[in-house]
Amino acid sequence: MSPTLPGAALPGYDEAAALIAGYAAKRARFRPGVERVALDEAAGRVLAEPLHADRDQPPFARSARDGFACRAAEASLHRPLAVAGATRAGQAPSGPLPRGSAWEIMTGAPVPSGADAVIMLEHVETSGGPSARTVRLLPPRTIEKDGNIVARGAQARKGDKLLSVGTAISAVQAALAAACGFPALKVFLRPRVAILATGDELVPIRSSPAPGQIRNSSSAMLAAMVAAAGGEPWVLPIARDTAKSLDAAIARAGAADLLLITGGVSAGRFDLVEPALARAGARFHFIGVRIQPGKPLVFGDLPKRNAKMGNSIRRASLPIFGLPGNPVSSAVTFLLFAAPVLAALAGRLDRGPRFALARLISDVKARPGLTRFLPAACSFAGSLPQVELISWEGSGDLAAMARANCFIVVPEEGDLRPKSRIEPGAIVRILLS
Amino acid sequence: MSPTLPGAALPGYDEAAALIAGYAAKRARFRPGVERVALDEAAGRVLAEPLHADRDQPPFARSARDGFACRAAEASLHRPLAVAGATRAGQAPSGPLPRGSAWEIMTGAPVPSGADAVIMLEHVETSGGPSARTVRLLPPRTIEKDGNIVARGAQARKGDKLLSVGTAISAVQAALAAACGFPALKVFLRPRVAILATGDELVPIRSSPAPGQIRNSSSAMLAAMVAAAGGEPWVLPIARDTAKSLDAAIARAGAADLLLITGGVSAGRFDLVEPALARAGARFHFIGVRIQPGKPLVFGDLPKRNAKMGNSIRRASLPIFGLPGNPVSSAVTFLLFAAPVLAALAGRLDRGPRFALARLISDVKARPGLTRFLPAACSFAGSLPQVELISWEGSGDLAAMARANCFIVVPEEGDLRPKSRIEPGAIVRILLS
Repeated sequence: MSPTLPGAALPGYDEAAALIAGYAAKRARFRPGVERVALDEAAGRVLAEPLHADRDQPPFARSARDGFACRAAEASLHRPLAVAGATRAGQAPSGPLPRGSAWEIMTGAPVPSGADAVIMLEHVETSGGPSARTVRLLPPRTIEKDGNIVARGAQARKGDKLLSVGTAISAVQAALAAACGFPALKVFLRPRVAILATGDELVPIRSSPAPGQIRNSSSAMLAAMVAAAGGEPWVLPIARDTAKSLDAAIARAGAADLLLITGGVSAGRFDLVEPALARAGARFHFIGVRIQPGKPLVFGDLPKRNAKMGNSIRRASLPIFGLPGNPVSSAVTFLLFAAPVLAALAGRLDRGPRFALARLISDVKARPGLTRFLPAACSFAGSLPQVELISWEGSGDLAAMARANCFIVVPEEGDLRPKSRIEPGAIVRILLS
Repeated sequence: MSPTLPGAALPGYDEAAALIAGYAAKRARFRPGVERVALDEAAGRVLAEPLHADRDQPPFARSARDGFACRAAEASLHRPLAVAGATRAGQAPSGPLPRGSAWEIMTGAPVPSGADAVIMLEHVETSGGPSARTVRLLPPRTIEKDGNIVARGAQARKGDKLLSVGTAISAVQAALAAACGFPALKVFLRPRVAILATGDELVPIRSSPAPGQIRNSSSAMLAAMVAAAGGEPWVLPIARDTAKSLDAAIARAGAADLLLITGGVSAGRFDLVEPALARAGARFHFIGVRIQPGKPLVFGDLPKRNAKMGNSIRRASLPIFGLPGNPVSSAVTFLLFAAPVLAALAGRLDRGPRFALARLISDVKARPGLTRFLPAACSFAGSLPQVELISWEGSGDLAAMARANCFIVVPEEGDLRPKSRIEPGAIVRILLS
């Protein structure tokens, strides 16, 4: 594609999302570097080696209940069975179980050899003294062979692959690693994400803005989003609206694995950023997407000047996103498009964005030719998740977005025909943040 | 309530959830201690002071577009307007705008006084040389007063409360704090959550389990879940199935803000844990909930021996959860019941659990008298979120749960009547993890 894609129709959301997914899949072929982290620091990291079962799971036939191990056929006759022994959890497998007898057992304990079922404590009648105790399964209840027993290896066989390379580690994956005896894991290095806010109106957080100026809030927002998505944020100083300032910042960002530029992609100011990217050799995949907010989004690649720099990506180009400067727009475009690319650079198999469904309780209006992503509040805690629009004053309205916890997805008007709005009660798609 | 609640019917899910929500609301009246953290380390923390707008937002009437500031009534006559000046973003407000003229302006720049609309670059025709340039709004387009202008203070007025105490800080909240000039924020101290795995069958991660033993995976899982939910995990050594070991561990946990015990709550072994809690003075809110997995869940309070210990909660009791020992059960019960209490102790206003909707593509079976939470895989990335059951070998099956990313909520069979299953294509509720 030509750098400015003159006259090209803008892609719609689905088309741009498919392009991003394809790009991410291609980038995922480059494996990032690897480090070793302790299990209790592994949350949010990405597995660089598969996790294999170190032994059968469970490692022995285990009881799923507190009760009595027995032979199912004998117990189902409802005759008293002599209690021949007892096994607590943690004890070595026992047995063999004598004919016509039962064996007291706790949840998680190994089933004695010879037993083929466990009858539950709540389902038996006990008789006799401590030395000659018997139990009897209360009629009319019977039990099947294998009842209340988890067979050895039922969950996994020794050597089975339990987790693949590219799995993001959260609580359950950490538990599985613990179960298999791994106090530390090999994970991929986090991609380094350069964040470059541009604009003569921006001043740092600690400054008191002069008339006409505002503080740089985009860098703080994107740094938090990058960290949450598994990247290592690298906030560059604000670039000014001059060729010199932009050229220097873009050259510096060449050491990163991903570059996010905010601002300078609308009709007027792109005059400065686009030539700067072009001078640096950028190849553009799209300039603009038919979404609202976020229409001016730019996605491309810069050639890597020094292929040895950066954490991870060898002989690859540097993906760049030119995000619109308004915070709602940059949040939406980050979640929809930059996060999946970041996930691929991090080595992750699942790359988002994440959508779910909820019941709409306000009504929303579609637009012709634009997929809308509108800040919304979802009552995730309720018995039926319900979502409503947040009233907002344009894509610069951070205060409104801070009251939102998701975005309602509104298809293009043409796809909703004959209606041009979604009415209360409809089930709608929401973008999770 | 009596310690063992003899003969009491077990609460159903909704009843237990309502009890937890009420308890959490009551606990939230005790404010945790406070510390100050830098904005770039504030993600996941909870605001201990409200955030107020330091000035009007936007601080000046700003242009929402690249184009020309003008008087709407003049521009809509389609006569050429002399370009009287230009304002870039970052420059001080300018003007006044002479009659019959326009003022070149960039997105984000202050609108000159006298102008009441901005016509977009794409909608004008330009004539004349650099020194005598004119622009004309192309017919038949007209523009309304206030068009493409965000009024000063439209998003917030100086002093407005933008974020309340108890707001969890994520990217957008960080951006808002940056916009208001806060490089650091006052946040609540994290509640300290004691995690106590019990059971003679458990050995530490680094050990090689003897026959009948398994490694302690619950503590690693709960530590990660606690950290993700905003708590500070404090993993205690494994307690053995003896009164002495349990008493000592429970006494030690008195220094925590919340105690999670795993194991020892099923019919057989609770004999040991329940008297230990009772000896320590526990008061039980429920012992068992009609859910699957997780039915043996215990929730109660222990009196605090030393009200000055712990991070945060003064003169309050220590909430305790006895979670079932099987990992799927403890994960589900943590998300449903312990996480909302933890959120309250952390000072959070939103306390979960989080549910969303998705389209079912397998079918699921209901049970009489039990609400089920079944490990499932949801394709959050697709255009329609679709969810299907993961096949699992009981609530000990960590390997299966590691392939899941949510839980399908299956109402009690009685609430689904006349059917006893949910069929493919239905919209179902999922518990987000």
